[in-house]
Amino acid sequence: MAKYRVLIDANDEKGLVYKVSKLFYEKDLNILTNNEFVDKVNNKFFMRSVVDGEVTKEELLLGLKKVLPLDSSLQVIEPKRKNIIIMATKEMHALGDILIRHEAGELEANILAVISNYDTLQPLVEKFDIPFVCVSHEGLDRAEHEEKILQELAKFSEIDYIVLAKYMRILTPRFVENFENRIINIHHSFLPAFIGANPYKQAYDRGVKIIGATAHFVNNNLDEGPIIAQDVTEVNHAYSWKDMQRLGRDVEKVVLSHALKLALEDRIFVYANKTVIF
Amino acid sequence: MAKYRVLIDANDEKGLVYKVSKLFYEKDLNILTNNEFVDKVNNKFFMRSVVDGEVTKEELLLGLKKVLPLDSSLQVIEPKRKNIIIMATKEMHALGDILIRHEAGELEANILAVISNYDTLQPLVEKFDIPFVCVSHEGLDRAEHEEKILQELAKFSEIDYIVLAKYMRILTPRFVENFENRIINIHHSFLPAFIGANPYKQAYDRGVKIIGATAHFVNNNLDEGPIIAQDVTEVNHAYSWKDMQRLGRDVEKVVLSHALKLALEDRIFVYANKTVIF
Amino acid sequence: MAKYRVLIDANDEKGLVYKVSKLFYEKDLNILTNNEFVDKVNNKFFMRSVVDGEVTKEELLLGLKKVLPLDSSLQVIEPKRKNIIIMATKEMHALGDILIRHEAGELEANILAVISNYDTLQPLVEKFDIPFVCVSHEGLDRAEHEEKILQELAKFSEIDYIVLAKYMRILTPRFVENFENRIINIHHSFLPAFIGANPYKQAYDRGVKIIGATAHFVNNNLDEGPIIAQDVTEVNHAYSWKDMQRLGRDVEKVVLSHALKLALEDRIFVYANKTVIF
Amino acid sequence: MAKYRVLIDANDEKGLVYKVSKLFYEKDLNILTNNEFVDKVNNKFFMRSVVDGEVTKEELLLGLKKVLPLDSSLQVIEPKRKNIIIMATKEMHALGDILIRHEAGELEANILAVISNYDTLQPLVEKFDIPFVCVSHEGLDRAEHEEKILQELAKFSEIDYIVLAKYMRILTPRFVENFENRIINIHHSFLPAFIGANPYKQAYDRGVKIIGATAHFVNNNLDEGPIIAQDVTEVNHAYSWKDMQRLGRDVEKVVLSHALKLALEDRIFVYANKTVIF
Repeated sequence: MAKYRVLIDANDEKGLVYKVSKLFYEKDLNILTNNEFVDKVNNKFFMRSVVDGEVTKEELLLGLKKVLPLDSSLQVIEPKRKNIIIMATKEMHALGDILIRHEAGELEANILAVISNYDTLQPLVEKFDIPFVCVSHEGLDRAEHEEKILQELAKFSEIDYIVLAKYMRILTPRFVENFENRIINIHHSFLPAFIGANPYKQAYDRGVKIIGATAHFVNNNLDEGPIIAQDVTEVNHAYSWKDMQRLGRDVEKVVLSHALKLALEDRIFVYANKTVIF
Repeated sequence: MAKYRVLIDANDEKGLVYKVSKLFYEKDLNILTNNEFVDKVNNKFFMRSVVDGEVTKEELLLGLKKVLPLDSSLQVIEPKRKNIIIMATKEMHALGDILIRHEAGELEANILAVISNYDTLQPLVEKFDIPFVCVSHEGLDRAEHEEKILQELAKFSEIDYIVLAKYMRILTPRFVENFENRIINIHHSFLPAFIGANPYKQAYDRGVKIIGATAHFVNNNLDEGPIIAQDVTEVNHAYSWKDMQRLGRDVEKVVLSHALKLALEDRIFVYANKTVIF
Repeated sequence: MAKYRVLIDANDEKGLVYKVSKLFYEKDLNILTNNEFVDKVNNKFFMRSVVDGEVTKEELLLGLKKVLPLDSSLQVIEPKRKNIIIMATKEMHALGDILIRHEAGELEANILAVISNYDTLQPLVEKFDIPFVCVSHEGLDRAEHEEKILQELAKFSEIDYIVLAKYMRILTPRFVENFENRIINIHHSFLPAFIGANPYKQAYDRGVKIIGATAHFVNNNLDEGPIIAQDVTEVNHAYSWKDMQRLGRDVEKVVLSHALKLALEDRIFVYANKTVIF
Repeated sequence: MAKYRVLIDANDEKGLVYKVSKLFYEKDLNILTNNEFVDKVNNKFFMRSVVDGEVTKEELLLGLKKVLPLDSSLQVIEPKRKNIIIMATKEMHALGDILIRHEAGELEANILAVISNYDTLQPLVEKFDIPFVCVSHEGLDRAEHEEKILQELAKFSEIDYIVLAKYMRILTPRFVENFENRIINIHHSFLPAFIGANPYKQAYDRGVKIIGATAHFVNNNLDEGPIIAQDVTEVNHAYSWKDMQRLGRDVEKVVLSHALKLALEDRIFVYANKTVIF
């Protein structure tokens, strides 16, 4: 018996649920979970169903295509471990959290490699028998540096997601467009507050009483991609910005790992620079 | 054009979504929101759809009954202001919060009356031109007191929900069975912690770092009915139990009003002493 | 026996705690609570003590002045009900929350009046026998309108705080400088995110997963005054901006009332556009 | 220049702050941070000061003893890396979180060893070059098993704290009394809710809307020791108890690591089965 995640993103019209559920019924599929959402403002319909039964992926795709509007976006996914690349710089907490989850078997992913512009994290990564690639940016301009990273990435036949686990360099549009909605970043603030450099310092200077972290897909505008997950924690006047940074790391790592899990389970739709998450 | 909330609670079987959505399609109904949940452990199917179109309630009911398993529970509800009774004792915050929401037009409800065993709250309630009924318990045993309350309730032709807004007396099974899953209570702790009297004192004595409040339907076991909503807030060693009580009131009132809103919008299913909330 | 709140804001130097506590000891005062904080970055010392004993306010002030650096800021406050003015526009939730607390006797404040640029809230305010003053802005420019409000305020001999309970107009520097660090506003976002108009709409458009509210003192830069309190609540893709607004109101009212309570209890120090809160 | 953490736990009496701060002043010490709390109910005074200056520990101790009531509890601690033992069973998340923090240099602690009743975690621990000791409980009664653990512990000259990072066996009073207020446990529920086995299953069965975790010192009553830290996260009807467990792990690990940090920084006082935390 096969299991599929069916993801539909269509212009809304009457009868979509009916037509899709009719197909599931005719194919004798069990619906394990089923979520729909209609954005009335944009007239968009989103559906994620997990089904199992005796049907091939091709049959299911074909059947669905017949009943959906022509311009729909449709995915039928067989759950399997996805391939991910982690990019990091020097901080250990976000990367470490993913490595431990991976080691614990919690993560439906193969970590193909960790790429960093420093070698600081090499000892940690190699403990877990995961390839570590240092691509130093020293002496290179941004384009040259990225070109070298892209060469490293090209060595892998299939990359589902790139996870920026506190990778502290800005990616160019050229890099980003290779992986549309497939690069997940953790920004160490409650976006859109404190865009840009050193958000904890900014938060300290502004005297906020709550700090946060935001996991988002990367697009061409820094810190402005679709938000996947956010969380916050309380601070007060006694926190220096270093204290905020330390405390914030726990939020960062949990939010990033949570966003990654959502991605690995194919729970995220992106549209209008926002996410629908089932 | 009519608008309906359709609530289905059935034993799960293949094709339920298909059959229901087929009916909606054939009746030319728009689906405004649609939520389903299957409890695989208990093999139970829950669905709440909000639809509009040119169909009578009777037609819709009849059509749905034909396609659902015989022992399903089905409700087709035309959204309208529900009738509620509030019961309170002396504390003002939870009652006051509901009164202000009512005054602001936020609450899809008519407050038929506020009933209390003291007259403390009478001046507040009467400011809002809402009937206040004092049914003192003095000199009465529990059964006699409740009998008098039931007599007051009998004066109203239709009561959808009774809201216990810090009503500090225990209701007997006899009273409760008149209003199964229609009495909403706010308990001033994070249930099941601190069941029973003076939970803030209990919380203080235990030295917890977080306190909470729980809105639940009342059943025959005190503080053990199905939970509708909970929330919490942080405390520390510097809080006396009176401080916890003061702080907790803000959690109580918001949680109770939120639970009431869910009930008024027909978003709550009850089964196995738990709630499914869409 | 008299009770005092002692607030000290000084440049830090060795021995401040010693000198102040020595004076308390010599005057035979009980220290009920005592909080200190030193901002090492700015070399600033903050102390709030609540003491009681047989000493006059003048004696205590005199004694403290002798031991503190010359340029210290010192307040010795006898706890009493403060006088507040509430300004609002049309929304009921924040104002209503304060009115109910006032009615419940929770608030150490006299509400001198509610001033609004509309008469929408008059019926609510008058229920509570509190003067309502409508100062319409129609046909007036900002300066003229504020002048009329200032005239109304001038009728009261002593105003401790002005609470902007969703007062939807921007105050000019001229108005604000009359009440430095005495105007408390509730902004309906998690500042500094979504400064300016319609923050819920902005939050919706940005696709955030958490919304919040911020209580702050008003200074001459809109939404940029010292933050007193913040809180947040989770949202998701299914929330319209109207839903966010409805949900956000519960956060707004609780945060504003909390900030007001801190002010009434003389717990807030302001410096460097930030607050120290004990 | 030496730095000290001064911890005072005394019966309250007038002048304690004065006498202590006088001593600090006379010894020409800088006060880096200073916190006091008086429990008026129990007439207990708590103070934690971090000071630096040119004084020996002995001088400072002697000076403080002279000014404090005879039955006071006094500690003068030179900040240094503490020695900890971690005990675990099979789960990786809480242990892994501590290992990563240790590796990142965030933890002011030497991990002397990880002791487990299974060898499941050995590969993980050894990656970090930390001794792993498997003390299987198979074929042993509880007393025999603990005796073997105590023998292992006896090999270390100084153990400051034992951290139970999901160690799934109950410790006997005999074991516990060797390490009074020095064993930190993470319980996977929001205590005192769901004491005992499988709290996530209990939480699922009760239908709660929030789950949590509690770090506490272990005393002789299971799950009833003084609470150090708690945190919670939201769940809903769609969560199986396995889902709750997965989600809860993130709360567990962060709460445990936070409690450990508080202990390592000597910020926790224990009394009346509660904690005062500065």
